[in-house]
Amino acid sequence: MKEEFFIKRINSKHIGDDGAFIDGKVYASDSFFEDIHFKREWFELDEISYKASLVNLSDLIVMNAKPKYALIDIGFPKSLSLHEIKLLASGFNKAAKEFGYEIIGGDTIKNEKIAISMTFIGESKRPVFRKAKLNEYVAFTGDLGSVDRDLKTLLRGGKIPKTSKFITPKLRDEFFYKASKYITSACDISDGLFKELERISNISNVGYEFLKKIPKNMGCSGEEYEILFTFPKRNLSIISNLAKLTKTKITVFAVTKRGKYKSICKENHF
Amino acid sequence: MKEEFFIKRINSKHIGDDGAFIDGKVYASDSFFEDIHFKREWFELDEISYKASLVNLSDLIVMNAKPKYALIDIGFPKSLSLHEIKLLASGFNKAAKEFGYEIIGGDTIKNEKIAISMTFIGESKRPVFRKAKLNEYVAFTGDLGSVDRDLKTLLRGGKIPKTSKFITPKLRDEFFYKASKYITSACDISDGLFKELERISNISNVGYEFLKKIPKNMGCSGEEYEILFTFPKRNLSIISNLAKLTKTKITVFAVTKRGKYKSICKENHF
Repeated sequence: MKEEFFIKRINSKHIGDDGAFIDGKVYASDSFFEDIHFKREWFELDEISYKASLVNLSDLIVMNAKPKYALIDIGFPKSLSLHEIKLLASGFNKAAKEFGYEIIGGDTIKNEKIAISMTFIGESKRPVFRKAKLNEYVAFTGDLGSVDRDLKTLLRGGKIPKTSKFITPKLRDEFFYKASKYITSACDISDGLFKELERISNISNVGYEFLKKIPKNMGCSGEEYEILFTFPKRNLSIISNLAKLTKTKITVFAVTKRGKYKSICKENHF
Repeated sequence: MKEEFFIKRINSKHIGDDGAFIDGKVYASDSFFEDIHFKREWFELDEISYKASLVNLSDLIVMNAKPKYALIDIGFPKSLSLHEIKLLASGFNKAAKEFGYEIIGGDTIKNEKIAISMTFIGESKRPVFRKAKLNEYVAFTGDLGSVDRDLKTLLRGGKIPKTSKFITPKLRDEFFYKASKYITSACDISDGLFKELERISNISNVGYEFLKKIPKNMGCSGEEYEILFTFPKRNLSIISNLAKLTKTKITVFAVTKRGKYKSICKENHF
């Protein structure tokens, strides 16, 4: 994959997690581009800027970092009306208010298409990385599969419900901030469960013994923004209780073991 | 201007300077997009990533901040060869090595055109803002006008020298880091001297008495990445000495006074 080739050419020891943890701070950056991540007709303008914020926040949450500051680099076409620009700004402001961070800068340029890149600075006393241990339970939050199904519907020209997680990811901040101290490793499911399992396998030198069969339509569904995480078996009851307390569905589906795991999904990337 | 309308709709008290200064750190973000800021045929690929880095570093330098970390969000076409991707990465690495910062993350996506957004985190014990005082000297570094002239040559299909500041901005870090303690306000000249004078006028409630006439081809030339700065008159000799020491040309051309200043240049932005 060409993007992985580029990343390997960049000299950095921090790249590999959802964000970089340095001196108590977590730095994370994600892009959200028209015709790459979304089509204009699928979203209201405030939904675009809100989702751009959420996909970035997702990276911070899975590292157990609280967002403090954000910078927004945005390109948008001259043809947008002032009302439309107001909508675009309101999605950014809505997320900042809800998650309690401040927008401190960025850059605004004219561009044919809407192109958003955000950088977040968060704080964490106890960051969670992608390094799992042997003989741990492996679990994910929520239900998987709906995002890929909804995306396919949109690509066929169909309609999807306003509540679709493709439009508005459902972040699991309440559960994860409480549960993180009982969790060994985590990442958000942006490229599909199986692909994220492969990443954790590579970083941690573990394979998986599946306790439940995960069908391909669930395991290969990207942009779910649910959380994949591993934890010591002894923490099962406390984690189950925290899930209940925060009304978060979790599915324990595997145990880490010696070995290596490779995703069977077709790569979405180039 | 629509970009200013967008910025006004974003709730932030930090926006307005080249970067945001918070707790000893400076955060700055800038985009560098194909067909907005450059055409592919004008640059080698490593020159593109190197310039993208320099225009960001420029923001940190004028605030007297030393760059520590950078995040790179980059989109590039699938059609780039591995050799071309290597070149692209090498420009980022070159700037990081020269200016002593670490690339800690980012996002890589497929995009029709090259689209780079970078965020820098710097450190400053004594940041310089855009707020000038009355009766101060106003000066700029280097020579102005060549960038606009070279850009026009390129737009006409002509050739420009490899040493053009349009290809590789000449940052004044050595001079500015030494001189900053004698300087009241500064900004980099990204949108032309006259436009930057207008910004400092608005922020500082000052006008200018010109000691030298600045022709329009100098005052309206954007992307110069020279530094506009003001300082107390008593600091003239020390600043002149530091300029000589660092082989940096400076031109003292005005004095701040009561009033308001408006740029006479045509707006480049939308």
